[in-house]
Amino acid sequence: MKTLADIGEDALIERLVRLVPTGDAAEGPGDDCAVVDDGGERLRLLKTDALVEGVHFVAEAEPRSVGWKAVARVISDFAAMGGVGEQFLVTVALPGSMEIAWIEGFYEGMGECLVKYGAVLAGGETSRVPEGSAAVISVAATGSVERGKAVLRSGGKPGDELWGTGRLGGSLAGKHLTFSPRVAEGRWIAEKLQPTAMMDLSDGVAKDLPRLAKASACGFVLDRAAIPCAEGCSVGQAIADGEDFELIFSAPPGIPVADWKEQFPDLELTRIGKLVPQGEGEDLSGGWDHFG
Amino acid sequence: MKTLADIGEDALIERLVRLVPTGDAAEGPGDDCAVVDDGGERLRLLKTDALVEGVHFVAEAEPRSVGWKAVARVISDFAAMGGVGEQFLVTVALPGSMEIAWIEGFYEGMGECLVKYGAVLAGGETSRVPEGSAAVISVAATGSVERGKAVLRSGGKPGDELWGTGRLGGSLAGKHLTFSPRVAEGRWIAEKLQPTAMMDLSDGVAKDLPRLAKASACGFVLDRAAIPCAEGCSVGQAIADGEDFELIFSAPPGIPVADWKEQFPDLELTRIGKLVPQGEGEDLSGGWDHFG
Repeated sequence: MKTLADIGEDALIERLVRLVPTGDAAEGPGDDCAVVDDGGERLRLLKTDALVEGVHFVAEAEPRSVGWKAVARVISDFAAMGGVGEQFLVTVALPGSMEIAWIEGFYEGMGECLVKYGAVLAGGETSRVPEGSAAVISVAATGSVERGKAVLRSGGKPGDELWGTGRLGGSLAGKHLTFSPRVAEGRWIAEKLQPTAMMDLSDGVAKDLPRLAKASACGFVLDRAAIPCAEGCSVGQAIADGEDFELIFSAPPGIPVADWKEQFPDLELTRIGKLVPQGEGEDLSGGWDHFG
Repeated sequence: MKTLADIGEDALIERLVRLVPTGDAAEGPGDDCAVVDDGGERLRLLKTDALVEGVHFVAEAEPRSVGWKAVARVISDFAAMGGVGEQFLVTVALPGSMEIAWIEGFYEGMGECLVKYGAVLAGGETSRVPEGSAAVISVAATGSVERGKAVLRSGGKPGDELWGTGRLGGSLAGKHLTFSPRVAEGRWIAEKLQPTAMMDLSDGVAKDLPRLAKASACGFVLDRAAIPCAEGCSVGQAIADGEDFELIFSAPPGIPVADWKEQFPDLELTRIGKLVPQGEGEDLSGGWDHFG
């Protein structure tokens, strides 16, 4: 019998979404968020995400940081659509032996991130896992984006340039627990740069850039020499480490880079490659696969 | 250091909700769903829930049934507000050794329940748990209810009668995996019976009735002789087993029971007690506590 480890995460999801009704939320599976049009002034965004002990954080991690990360990851997904987060729900599945101080610290960290990004916790659920099992925390949220401003992964065209914010790599040294989701940056990009596709980097350029290109029915060429590496990181690490939570996007040549520098003087914006016709360009391997 | 097992689920949640911004969704913590008013014709409902291997289902359980239950539990929470489910999100955290056939069966079961109740899967997330850890499945969803028709837990008044649908107890014999959420019933009750408070029975009358009474700032008296027991169950089991997913509600005396019988001839409606002033009535112990 085949197991999840045999086929990997992306192939698994492709098989699973055929088994359920997905309705009009056609942007759901495969994009950063689901996009729902309920006829209001804004499009509604929906996202769920999980943090697993021993996978996304270690048992010794500072609980406030884990709480911050749990919310910030989802805020980052909304930012990658050009949107903002609104109502959050959290499910915590924990062993009964977990100290109350840990989960209180976790909630405080969630609270800090929610306050900073103007969102609220609308509900939660607690459950027990058997002793010895990993703690699992799942966050789901609603967000929104102005009608006509949602940036999908699927609009890229051959000839578009690929751009990325910030510096990549080395997240495990601590950045993965303390990062700032690029909300203002995502909204500015959506508003001013007419990006054709955008996503956030959670599994690394090596995993995420091929996803953006595939969703846009394009190939890609990566300019390795241009990759902005975090201090002490090689290009290989910058491409494959994952959990950078920076934004990458595609746009026709000629974006006003000077305007970016004026708006965000402390955050780099780097041209890292371009989209090419499907079947051309290069392959990338590596990056983070949950079941690989 | 105190652990989760020391204080129990309800006390834990009371401590945690003070640590985060909850915004205007004041009906969130403590009710079946969060209720959000975004100015539209309908109120928006939000809910998250979790299924843990070894707690809510055994590893040998039929995956279609587990998938059905994962969605049906949340549909039941919407029904308990008088509402319906709409957009679902699922997070599955599984060991890499899990067979693909299992997760496909799980998705098929979710799909059956979504189709039956007119909802869709808008998005999902897969993650790995370390080998040997329990699988954790979290479902989050949006729903809605007509403005003015949302039934909270908090509107009960002393003197109101307490009513329950169906027969209680014995869920572990299999009913907990195959139950039908009382959507049509919940909406009919909300429309025709002017209930003052309503909730679904997930943790058993012994746990859930005190929650409804507390939210309504009332005490309660339970008519044990009237409890409708499932075949082969004692009154004690009917009160404490949990996972019945029937509805209980309070309403002033004189509801039109004959109309119920005409509308739902195959499902019993039973008066099981009444609300009394706070500080009077009885205590109940037992029922399901995740950390007790």
